[in-house]
Amino acid sequence: MLKAGVYGASGYTGQELLKFLSRHPDVELKAVTSRRFKDLFVSDVFPCFEGLTGIKYVDASAEEIASACDIIFSALPHGVAMDFVPKLLKSGKQVIDLSADFRLRSLPVYEKWYRKHSSADYLSRAVYGLPELYRDKLKTARLVANPGCYPTSIILGLAPALKSGLADLASIIADSKSGVSGAGREPKTGSLFCEVNEGFKPYNILKHRHTPEIEQELSALAGSDVRITFTPHLLPVNRGILSTIYAGVKKGTTTKDLIEVYKSFYAKEKFVQVLKEGAYPNISSVKGTNNCQIGLAVDSSIGRAVIVSAIDNLVKGAAGQAIQNMNIMCGLEETSGLGNIALFP
Amino acid sequence: MLKAGVYGASGYTGQELLKFLSRHPDVELKAVTSRRFKDLFVSDVFPCFEGLTGIKYVDASAEEIASACDIIFSALPHGVAMDFVPKLLKSGKQVIDLSADFRLRSLPVYEKWYRKHSSADYLSRAVYGLPELYRDKLKTARLVANPGCYPTSIILGLAPALKSGLADLASIIADSKSGVSGAGREPKTGSLFCEVNEGFKPYNILKHRHTPEIEQELSALAGSDVRITFTPHLLPVNRGILSTIYAGVKKGTTTKDLIEVYKSFYAKEKFVQVLKEGAYPNISSVKGTNNCQIGLAVDSSIGRAVIVSAIDNLVKGAAGQAIQNMNIMCGLEETSGLGNIALFP
Amino acid sequence: MLKAGVYGASGYTGQELLKFLSRHPDVELKAVTSRRFKDLFVSDVFPCFEGLTGIKYVDASAEEIASACDIIFSALPHGVAMDFVPKLLKSGKQVIDLSADFRLRSLPVYEKWYRKHSSADYLSRAVYGLPELYRDKLKTARLVANPGCYPTSIILGLAPALKSGLADLASIIADSKSGVSGAGREPKTGSLFCEVNEGFKPYNILKHRHTPEIEQELSALAGSDVRITFTPHLLPVNRGILSTIYAGVKKGTTTKDLIEVYKSFYAKEKFVQVLKEGAYPNISSVKGTNNCQIGLAVDSSIGRAVIVSAIDNLVKGAAGQAIQNMNIMCGLEETSGLGNIALFP
Amino acid sequence: MLKAGVYGASGYTGQELLKFLSRHPDVELKAVTSRRFKDLFVSDVFPCFEGLTGIKYVDASAEEIASACDIIFSALPHGVAMDFVPKLLKSGKQVIDLSADFRLRSLPVYEKWYRKHSSADYLSRAVYGLPELYRDKLKTARLVANPGCYPTSIILGLAPALKSGLADLASIIADSKSGVSGAGREPKTGSLFCEVNEGFKPYNILKHRHTPEIEQELSALAGSDVRITFTPHLLPVNRGILSTIYAGVKKGTTTKDLIEVYKSFYAKEKFVQVLKEGAYPNISSVKGTNNCQIGLAVDSSIGRAVIVSAIDNLVKGAAGQAIQNMNIMCGLEETSGLGNIALFP
Repeated sequence: MLKAGVYGASGYTGQELLKFLSRHPDVELKAVTSRRFKDLFVSDVFPCFEGLTGIKYVDASAEEIASACDIIFSALPHGVAMDFVPKLLKSGKQVIDLSADFRLRSLPVYEKWYRKHSSADYLSRAVYGLPELYRDKLKTARLVANPGCYPTSIILGLAPALKSGLADLASIIADSKSGVSGAGREPKTGSLFCEVNEGFKPYNILKHRHTPEIEQELSALAGSDVRITFTPHLLPVNRGILSTIYAGVKKGTTTKDLIEVYKSFYAKEKFVQVLKEGAYPNISSVKGTNNCQIGLAVDSSIGRAVIVSAIDNLVKGAAGQAIQNMNIMCGLEETSGLGNIALFP
Repeated sequence: MLKAGVYGASGYTGQELLKFLSRHPDVELKAVTSRRFKDLFVSDVFPCFEGLTGIKYVDASAEEIASACDIIFSALPHGVAMDFVPKLLKSGKQVIDLSADFRLRSLPVYEKWYRKHSSADYLSRAVYGLPELYRDKLKTARLVANPGCYPTSIILGLAPALKSGLADLASIIADSKSGVSGAGREPKTGSLFCEVNEGFKPYNILKHRHTPEIEQELSALAGSDVRITFTPHLLPVNRGILSTIYAGVKKGTTTKDLIEVYKSFYAKEKFVQVLKEGAYPNISSVKGTNNCQIGLAVDSSIGRAVIVSAIDNLVKGAAGQAIQNMNIMCGLEETSGLGNIALFP
Repeated sequence: MLKAGVYGASGYTGQELLKFLSRHPDVELKAVTSRRFKDLFVSDVFPCFEGLTGIKYVDASAEEIASACDIIFSALPHGVAMDFVPKLLKSGKQVIDLSADFRLRSLPVYEKWYRKHSSADYLSRAVYGLPELYRDKLKTARLVANPGCYPTSIILGLAPALKSGLADLASIIADSKSGVSGAGREPKTGSLFCEVNEGFKPYNILKHRHTPEIEQELSALAGSDVRITFTPHLLPVNRGILSTIYAGVKKGTTTKDLIEVYKSFYAKEKFVQVLKEGAYPNISSVKGTNNCQIGLAVDSSIGRAVIVSAIDNLVKGAAGQAIQNMNIMCGLEETSGLGNIALFP
Repeated sequence: MLKAGVYGASGYTGQELLKFLSRHPDVELKAVTSRRFKDLFVSDVFPCFEGLTGIKYVDASAEEIASACDIIFSALPHGVAMDFVPKLLKSGKQVIDLSADFRLRSLPVYEKWYRKHSSADYLSRAVYGLPELYRDKLKTARLVANPGCYPTSIILGLAPALKSGLADLASIIADSKSGVSGAGREPKTGSLFCEVNEGFKPYNILKHRHTPEIEQELSALAGSDVRITFTPHLLPVNRGILSTIYAGVKKGTTTKDLIEVYKSFYAKEKFVQVLKEGAYPNISSVKGTNNCQIGLAVDSSIGRAVIVSAIDNLVKGAAGQAIQNMNIMCGLEETSGLGNIALFP
């Protein structure tokens, strides 16, 4: 049994990780940390754990966690993870970091969008944890930078079109809509029920921090610099991201053509479903699962593709993808512990 | 034109008051205060005011507000209002207080459920602002204690049954469900979208602070001490309170009998609708209005009445009722400025 | 591997059964029927199944289904199941019926609340499928009548109080609130998003068909006739039932006393959690799970208990309980396939 | 007092019209028709009208309605209005038609997207009822084709950019999100609460019938043929449309430049608010109002504008705009009866 720990498990992503780990057939959950909730049962903080064997939050050092576990998930915030993760690595353990601190390979880009980086030399050692693109590297990775939720939905939505050279690189627009759990569990006026419910709005237009992460991966796929327009919106639902992506394609390209390219690209992927012509994903069809569903349409006469990609932001966009990465890094079956069917309705 | 001011208008009830006052045909809104939002436009804090003539929040003393206004609405929190309201009254102006500080006529009861009272002598001078019960007193009131939201729904739901002697006083249970706006706009984990949405739960069972207020008024109606069981629940909606009330009645009493008593009691009331047999209220039918809808059923064989009462907690349960009180206190048409039809759907 | 089939799997409960059965380690899903969706993939009707091995709906006779399966779940509507289920039984297979047709042991009661019964002789042979009360009988049952959703929440909430003789039988009130999936997937105006969202209302007051089912089981527990007042309400959520139950108890009984009785009653139950003093369940803590969470409070001075019980109406209130029954009937581990943790948020 | 009637008032738009008309200071509501609800009180069908003076649905001919009213709102569906509206016009009365039947000026375009038109000669006589563009023509109009909800949000969002020649006509994309009331009140599986709640999806990609209406008006503004990509999505809210619109602009154009053009274009409009830099609309800020709020941003380096436009689909997108048109057609104050402030929260 693989021994796993979660560092900083007090938020929505943290508790989601605990669910996957505690049901995983090949994993023993050894430690769950939270300074704030120290000594409380997880079920006191998240009553959905009531009745499971009593896991308690502990406050532990990196070294203590490292000595108890084979692999550690860090769910610390950006800026904190950069100091903590290297300590774990030095103790020789594998780390999956869910913050943004190791996702960008370029130090200047990181420091432009975020802040000064205290562990810059690790940027080049981290593997970007999107298995559909980096599976081979992940097999031997020590440090995995688990992708952001918006980036996961957009990169998976565009990868086949970019890799195949079908998309006009100057024309890419990603109009994304995310459920509220993406904003975390900190009490903020903007995340209050009454502020969000029966509302809908965009935010951080042209300045969301996921932009450089998306552009880094799209550029790698295209083999050339890609600049996109990315507009995130806040959806009045708990979970889910749906990205509606627009890209120019050669006039005459048909929906069938595009679907064929996508089906072929994702033919062996267990967690990506390319829908048939005329079908488009709904976030409710992936709720609670590690799946990404993709629907495609092309306006052949003007040469523009509409690509719709849906994931659960807490699963394929965070905790589930982290489990998938763990499975790959540790030589387990890639789908192990990830067999959920969407909770619909 | 009546000159009105709102003191402490930074919450949901405060902004709701501003809406009613700025559309009221007989009122000029002179001042709106908030220490936190000082110098900001109301529309910067609540974008639903965008495009209306620019009202700004000011930070002003009681005396400054009093000198500019004929009547002042205090939307300060419990414990703060008790110090502030007397200052306004001393300047000779009328005050409608939306806190709990002047609702209870008994000092010991207030101090048991809330805290030490700094202005206890005002308790006996305040009029409880439920027009359907205290209209005559309100006409000459200087200080009105605007009722709580749960109490409004429950007292209106029980008044005819108690006044007529129909209800068994030892058997009263009020099972109430409230929208989230009742919890205010302060950022709290428990009011976050993800905590409330797709959830439903009771809270403060047997210890909610509205209990003594409800019992005070039910006892006055019954002419004898009434103790109730009151269970509040949090509904995943923005607005609305629905109270399902149970009370023993004499066996053989029919639904028709009860409806007749209620229709007669509320015959002249503009804001209370007693529904016909078999019809029950939905909070969506009173959303945004000052109405209270009541539905009734009796199980004649076991002698138990089910009384269902619905209001909008921010309107009949707070701001709208305050406007109704103002209209009465100031000799205006009681329905003036309160002609909204529910925003359905 | 147990061979299972689902007859009439086109609704919310049907698709939920398919999820549990297709993930169940000891079951092979052999057939799924729907006249309406015949020849369609389940994933065409419910896109949450996209990417799973392609199960198709078939239209098959009772005999065909019976010959392919060891156990059959009937998800046909009331009035249809009564004709169909006997055919399956005659072929010697085990049947779990999710309709109301075999839940009532008294023919006159069934015919008063529902309609003429065509297979009345089966009423006495069916076992009421609430494992916490009827586990032993279920082990050898051929026909199990899977309980209604409201009854499950109310009976589990009251069983310890009635069995122990603590509750005053004349005073029981169940104020229940259900998510919309309980109304099924048939298109009806009253189930439209805009009719339900931001609304809340009671319905079928004093005449809901689950009343006789609840009273039958409460009477059996009490050993004496019990009549209750049951008020169902429609909650604007997808899933979940929360019942707030009131019952007289002897003055002086404390919350601690009641909790002790409940903890002892349910000590060995895997799917019932009795919460500690001051904690009350939220439907979001049982979403997607087979759990029932119960919170308790007693007003000792007036002698009244408040019992709060929460389940997922589609799981412990329908499909999950059916799986639990199957596990018991077929000698499998009772918790097999039911290890979900609630999907929160 | 203007005498008004509503023909076919059984849906969400119809009841919304009744609200505006019954509160309108210059209007007397003379007749409300519905074949289905004939002889029922409006309050029986829509309980939000409970307690208002009892309006009843009647079943009446075009001639009967015309003889009782000065102006008639037709809320009949597409394909039915085309036969009915000419009858009203022949009787000399003014008509505001809320269907799509008279919105398209080109017969072939109408017949390509909808069906054979039985009253094609009226297409050229109808005035497209978007007051911000056609106010002068509306003053003398006999037949007004009230715009669609999506078109209203998109055309108002693009008008200044197109009229000023700022936008690249080949690059326009409108990514729109609509509340569920836009789908009407007919019972359909896709509009059920459980299908929509906690979900989000696009629909009718590249083939929504509002496309030609949008393109007609954008082309008129641009003075040249415009083809757009329009992607509608279904939002889990009752009301509101938010359109996120993308258009190429000359590199170097700034957000400030664009805001200036918009502020100037809409300087005299009472129902359009152009937000300041960095502010974007939320549908909750226009809920229940006739307002359109617009926020703007430009990525100067790549030359792309992001235009965000929000309306209430039932008000500015339907009933409210119809009232605004009536006010203009009948010489009333344009804002009369439309003074609502948004119902937030």
